[in-house]
Amino acid sequence: MADTSDIFNKVPELGYQEKAPETDPKAFARILEARRSVRVYDATPVPEAIMREVFEWTLLAPNSSNLQCWEFYWVRNPEKKKNLAKFCFNQPAARTAAELVVAVARPSHWKKHARQMVSTFEEAEKAGQKIPASAWAYYKKLAPFVYTQGPLSIFGHIKKIIFFFRGLTSITPREPTSHAGMSLWANKSCALACENFMLGMSAHGFDTCPMEGFDSKRVKKLLNLNCTDAVTMVISVGKRGPNGVYGQRVRFPSAQFIKEV
Amino acid sequence: MADTSDIFNKVPELGYQEKAPETDPKAFARILEARRSVRVYDATPVPEAIMREVFEWTLLAPNSSNLQCWEFYWVRNPEKKKNLAKFCFNQPAARTAAELVVAVARPSHWKKHARQMVSTFEEAEKAGQKIPASAWAYYKKLAPFVYTQGPLSIFGHIKKIIFFFRGLTSITPREPTSHAGMSLWANKSCALACENFMLGMSAHGFDTCPMEGFDSKRVKKLLNLNCTDAVTMVISVGKRGPNGVYGQRVRFPSAQFIKEV
Repeated sequence: MADTSDIFNKVPELGYQEKAPETDPKAFARILEARRSVRVYDATPVPEAIMREVFEWTLLAPNSSNLQCWEFYWVRNPEKKKNLAKFCFNQPAARTAAELVVAVARPSHWKKHARQMVSTFEEAEKAGQKIPASAWAYYKKLAPFVYTQGPLSIFGHIKKIIFFFRGLTSITPREPTSHAGMSLWANKSCALACENFMLGMSAHGFDTCPMEGFDSKRVKKLLNLNCTDAVTMVISVGKRGPNGVYGQRVRFPSAQFIKEV
Repeated sequence: MADTSDIFNKVPELGYQEKAPETDPKAFARILEARRSVRVYDATPVPEAIMREVFEWTLLAPNSSNLQCWEFYWVRNPEKKKNLAKFCFNQPAARTAAELVVAVARPSHWKKHARQMVSTFEEAEKAGQKIPASAWAYYKKLAPFVYTQGPLSIFGHIKKIIFFFRGLTSITPREPTSHAGMSLWANKSCALACENFMLGMSAHGFDTCPMEGFDSKRVKKLLNLNCTDAVTMVISVGKRGPNGVYGQRVRFPSAQFIKEV
């Protein structure tokens, strides 16, 4: 298999420095407190500028290998929006929403985006920026090895066997080794971006509800998606109505989930 | 199949109201700007109080059906931490990190958490809170129908066939219908929480790097996880070193990803 040790291990000499801006943890806590799943919206529209800014924020989420295998459909056409709400079983969170957004994972886009990363690097080097050798190698050699699964995941199966035997004696990467694994891979990055979207809306004083109760087949048909694409979630947006939040937030004790080992 | 129309459609009469606190979009934009994947950390430790607060924030992420099928392992034991870094191929983001956290999706926990939701409701009603009938029905009837997959996903396969025929004429929920689907389902919620964690650290002036390059088999063994559990990602935490960010953020034009339909 491809030797990943150099790509992962060496710290490249780049001379690039980026200082983080000052941030306010209390402001973040308020945004988290404001984010509740809202089931009933009032009639307040969401300003277009806010939608656009929050979409930009959405795309700032970290994502696997920066391959950006995500898409966000802002369903504005009234007929389509009505149908989308229907495909979400007309639940109040969908039918009363000012805006509806469909977050989509598109794992098959890894290939063209890996090429796009290479051209981005070419342009950056022309502009005088230094791109580490490991980054070139990553997108030209390692990414194709990791993400190519082949028809019926045949290459994936072969990789799985190789990884199994290699893994008996060495630390070995394991996933993804199938098209289902690729879907999982892209859905995870897409979900990170969805959280940016929802928190971004809360930061602007608007509410959201992430929905997984929908007819994915009909939603995909509405958006002309194909079988390898996956609807990560549908997110509704608007301003909470007086009865929009159904109750106090319920979370089990954190000791159930935070394990110190 | 279970009739979901009532559960999804009716707005319950609850008399509960929750106003959102004032939020600051500019503060959120700064947090997003501060969040870069940091590959090399300096020696600054992360105060324990900050770790604990950010874990609490992590658990405030929305999650599917509020079943909270996630866990976050804070690997503090020096020997285990060293091994975990090794299982991440000793990449600088892991080996120089002040703290390492493993985010784990545990789909099999849906069952006990559904029961825990029911007891939470019982206690809330004793305390005078009103729980809508649809919420009781959801956790007692619908959730078991939706999330039970059976050995070798046999119930999942049956559901898939039912959904297929039902879907020919009616709007129909489709997923999850297998254990792999359950894993995807839990991983998505877990990823939402991971983004809270990373933004929370940025809000506190600390840096993170989400990693998917690891030997999942060895990581799971280290944490005593079983085969249905999935490592969503490993997140390293610390303060960026001078060369910690490898370059300017690269994102392709947003028009590639934000689709207005």
